[in-house]
This record gives sequence, C-alpha cells and structure tokens, in this order.
Amino acid sequence: MTCSEFDLIRHFFTEQAIQRADVPVGIGDDAALLAPPSGCVLAVSVDTLIAGVHFPLDTAARAVGYKSLAVNLSDLAAMGAEPAWVTLALSLPEPDETWLTGFAQGFFDLASEHGVQLVGGDTTRGPLSITVQVTGFVPLGQAVLRSGAKPGDGVFLTGTVGDAGLGLHLYQQPPSGANNDATMNLIHRLEFPVPRIAAGLTLRGRASSAIDVSDGLAADLGHVLTASGVGADIRVKQLPLSAAYCSLAPADDWQAAVSAGDDYELCFTLPAEQEAATLAALDCDCTRIGEISSSPGLRWWDANDRQLTLNNAGFDHFITMGK
Amino acid sequence: MTCSEFDLIRHFFTEQAIQRADVPVGIGDDAALLAPPSGCVLAVSVDTLIAGVHFPLDTAARAVGYKSLAVNLSDLAAMGAEPAWVTLALSLPEPDETWLTGFAQGFFDLASEHGVQLVGGDTTRGPLSITVQVTGFVPLGQAVLRSGAKPGDGVFLTGTVGDAGLGLHLYQQPPSGANNDATMNLIHRLEFPVPRIAAGLTLRGRASSAIDVSDGLAADLGHVLTASGVGADIRVKQLPLSAAYCSLAPADDWQAAVSAGDDYELCFTLPAEQEAATLAALDCDCTRIGEISSSPGLRWWDANDRQLTLNNAGFDHFITMGK
Repeated sequence: MTCSEFDLIRHFFTEQAIQRADVPVGIGDDAALLAPPSGCVLAVSVDTLIAGVHFPLDTAARAVGYKSLAVNLSDLAAMGAEPAWVTLALSLPEPDETWLTGFAQGFFDLASEHGVQLVGGDTTRGPLSITVQVTGFVPLGQAVLRSGAKPGDGVFLTGTVGDAGLGLHLYQQPPSGANNDATMNLIHRLEFPVPRIAAGLTLRGRASSAIDVSDGLAADLGHVLTASGVGADIRVKQLPLSAAYCSLAPADDWQAAVSAGDDYELCFTLPAEQEAATLAALDCDCTRIGEISSSPGLRWWDANDRQLTLNNAGFDHFITMGK
Repeated sequence: MTCSEFDLIRHFFTEQAIQRADVPVGIGDDAALLAPPSGCVLAVSVDTLIAGVHFPLDTAARAVGYKSLAVNLSDLAAMGAEPAWVTLALSLPEPDETWLTGFAQGFFDLASEHGVQLVGGDTTRGPLSITVQVTGFVPLGQAVLRSGAKPGDGVFLTGTVGDAGLGLHLYQQPPSGANNDATMNLIHRLEFPVPRIAAGLTLRGRASSAIDVSDGLAADLGHVLTASGVGADIRVKQLPLSAAYCSLAPADDWQAAVSAGDDYELCFTLPAEQEAATLAALDCDCTRIGEISSSPGLRWWDANDRQLTLNNAGFDHFITMGK
C-alpha cells in the first residue's frame, strides 16, 4: 500500500466535527494560527504514549486514540484549565486504515465531548508512538498549581484509585473463573480514563493545590508535598476503592491502590473554609483521605492510628510495563 | 543504570539560559502556564524526527538536538512568526548521559539564539524519536500563508537548494577522493539547517505567500500553487545552487536539487511592487527563480525557453531514506 503522509493526515484528521472560532488557520499551512482569548493564560501539556510501554501492544486502536488525548486533558484538568486546541504527532509502522479509523474515532469522540479542535499534526513511519499536546485557557491568577498546599488543608480524591493498575494486571494475566463484569470494568478504567475537566474548573479559585494521578497516588501526592514544602497524613481506610477493585484485589491491598498509576483522578487540597461549598459543586464522587501537615513526608495510617509502611515506589514508565 | 524519567528531565532540560517573562509557570507542574501577548495570533508547528527515517541512525546527538528544533522554527519562519516557546517529547532507548548532553547542547544553542524557552516535555523509553512543538507570535493579519500567491508575482528562494539532499547521499555513500571541504559543507547543511526566522519577519506584510522547503522545492512550491489556485513557471538556470553542490553534483542535476528535501530555505512570492524593498531588507541571499501564472501547474524551463520534464516526485518520509 502506497499512501503518502499528506494523504494520511488529510483523510483521517481534517474532517472533524469541532471547528472553533478561535482557529483562523488550522491544519494545512506551515503552522496553525490560533487566537487566544484576552484575560487568560494558556495551559499547555504534552505526553507521549508508546506501544508496549504505556499500553499493551494489542490494545484496541480506539482505546489508544481516546487515551492519548485523555491523559493530556487530565493534566489540564489538574490546572483548572478549559481545553481548546490539540496537536497530534503520530508515528506508526504502516498506514493501516482499519487501525487509523479506530484511533481517529477514539480521539475525536473525546475531543468533541470537550469542544477541542485538532489544529496540527505530523504523521511519520516508525514504531507506534503518539505524542499529543493540548492547550487550554485559565483566567489570570486562577490556575491551580502543585505548590499551594498549606498545613491544615484537607486532601481529596475524585473517583476511585487502583482500578487501572489492577485492570492492567488482569489484562496481562486474565484469571480463570474471575468475576467478568468486574474484570471488564477495571480494564475499561485502564483504557478509557475520564479526564476530570469539569471538576478541575470547579476547583479554580478554591483548591490550594491539585495534581492528576497518573503515576500513582503516593508518587503524585509526593510531588504536591515537595512543591508545597509540606507533608501529609493519609487515612488508608478512607481511600476510595471501587466495588470491582474490592471484589478482585486482596482485601487489604491498599498499597497497590496507591502505587499503581493511570487512574487519572484528581488529588487536590482544600482549605477548611472551602470544603463544603466545593464538595457540593463537584460533579463527581469525591473523598477526603487525609490532611496536609507542616511535618514533611507522606505518612499512611490505619483505623487504629498505627502508622503503616508503603513498600512500593509508584509507576515509572522507564522501569515497568512490558520492559 | 537506573534513572527515572523525572530525574532525566530535570537534569538535562530545566537548566536553560532563556527565561522568558511570558512564562509564569514552566516545566514542573501538570501543565505550563504561558501568557500570550495581546494583538497577536499564535503560530504553532509540530514535527517528529525518527531515527533511521528523518536522520541516519549514527547522526551525532548535537545535530539531532539542533535539527529537531530547527525544522519547527523553519515552519514558523514560513508564517512570518517570531518564535517564543517550545515543548519537547523525547523517546530514547536508554537514558544515555553522553547522548543527552550532546542533544541538549544542540537544542539549547539554537533555542538561545532565537530567545526560545523550553516550557514542557515528556521523556519516555522507546525507539529514538523526537517530537518538538514551537509556538510563535504574529501580529493580527500579518501572517504569511500559502494561499495568497497571485498571477504575476515573482517566485523567490532564500539561500541555495539541493545541498542537504546531496549531503545525505554523500553521508550514506562517502565517495573516494572527493572534495572534502565541499562534502563536509553539504553534510553540515543537512545536519544544521538554518531556520530563516529573520527573513520570515521581513516577509510579513510583503510576501503574498511563503513555505519552507522541507520536502523539496517541487513538492513544496506545489503546495503553494494548490493552496493559491495558480500555476508557476520556473527558470531552471536561475535555481540557486551552492559551489559545493555544483562541484559534486552532475552539471545538469537540477532535478535532484528541486526534488531533495531538508534544505529549510524559504520559497515565497512577491507582488512586483514589493520586490525591490523586500530584497533590500532581507538578511540573506535571495534569488528570483520564476513567476506565478494563472495557468495551473508547475512548469520548468531551460535558458532557451524549452520546457523540461521533472521526473522525481520529491521527498516523502513514508517512502524514502533508510526504509
């Protein structure tokens, strides 16, 4: 099959539902021209997904397309940004039409849901790899950083954690006679993580810090603590675990839940006076899991106020998964 | 060697000379925060370079770092944009310190030259691949598009063409007893193309169209003609060829010069009334090679007004180089 890079891009990536008024020139010139709104800063995130490193080699194309955008939208959510524009650099071994159709479907379904327009890209022959960059808007002074957590703030999590990590385990080593609904549920969480965009917008001007849980709660909350110069005490019994997770993971496997990555939930901190109004305004389940402390370090506690030791180090793409 | 992705990024890519005032938050949070100037649109370009496809596998790291930024700056030059911010998604097989040092040197030397700040990135384990996205500014209404060429406009080229293509050929098949200075010169043109940023700024409000020559003059001028709905007549004897090219290429090898890519010169069109002032204002050599015509198609003419036939199709990364 002979198919030039230009034909590829044109065919799969120029016919899209979203046409934003702030894109005077989209795909097709040397560069896209974009008109940012006044009174805002831009929030920009870029992430690469590599087959066999960030997702199993046999992952469905639709899931790859969806997730390559979702992980970037999740970064914008963690800043309180409203997504607008995206670029896509796609490297693939062969211009495989079936694969591209599935990929484009997953990518554009999610883009449309959030009003995001693809404004540029590059398609090259090479090992399967996807680099996506999204740009969003935040009103001046309202971005939520990692560095603002203060002693006394509550620590919160949207949704549940551990699902994607267990989903990956079940995907790679399917159990015999397992609970199939729960298994499919967890694998779906791995392949189609929901970026918490609406929650991020709610946190603007309220949360003192936020991060998305991509490398595992322990690692990501650790980044917040370092950036803020504080510590935290987390109540293990308060960790939000899904029914599917509890049905398939060992009963006390909180360690895997806080070490596994890819859940793309938001972990954020709220001053006490913001708690009630913020929780009421959020569009998703949210759980208070502990408090920020002036004492440095991340500590884990059981229901009897005994300190627990975490043995895992979190998910680092240079160390794990298929390598 | 155990080296986490975070350590890698921090060590090589956070200590940079350029710290722009319009970057309130750079590397280190979930997303960068960027403050665009008022009265401008953003010009955004993204390109991927893959080892063995876009550059020979044994290319020096410094050349890879330089070129991965240069090809994107060249796209901004072709729009008349002033570069400002860049992100880097780097996939490499091993966290090789020597390689990273060279790569960073090539990348940041060029970034500093143009006042460009690295504001975000992602580093992953995988086959060597680099995706760079640059953002620049253009005052409202002054961007130079591909679509504005008009019958009667002159067609111009900065610098010389064919050098990088011949450089690649000489790199892959070193001749015995060749002119060594000329050979090194051509290989340097391949590895360290100069993005024509200053020329692009001069073309603002003057050129009716512009494109950078990345896929070969024939292919790239073809894009301009298609976008503008016009044709062109090019005088082969007017094509600017370097002394090094002429010393090492067959005497009449204009076909290779207009088919090979990677020169990153600007091809642009000027209305007659803009010619004198624009050529005087340009900071680099520039040659008039032909005229835009209302008759569709790209035609090549010799010095005796005989039409010539071009047999090559240009450089498409899905078809050529090491595949």
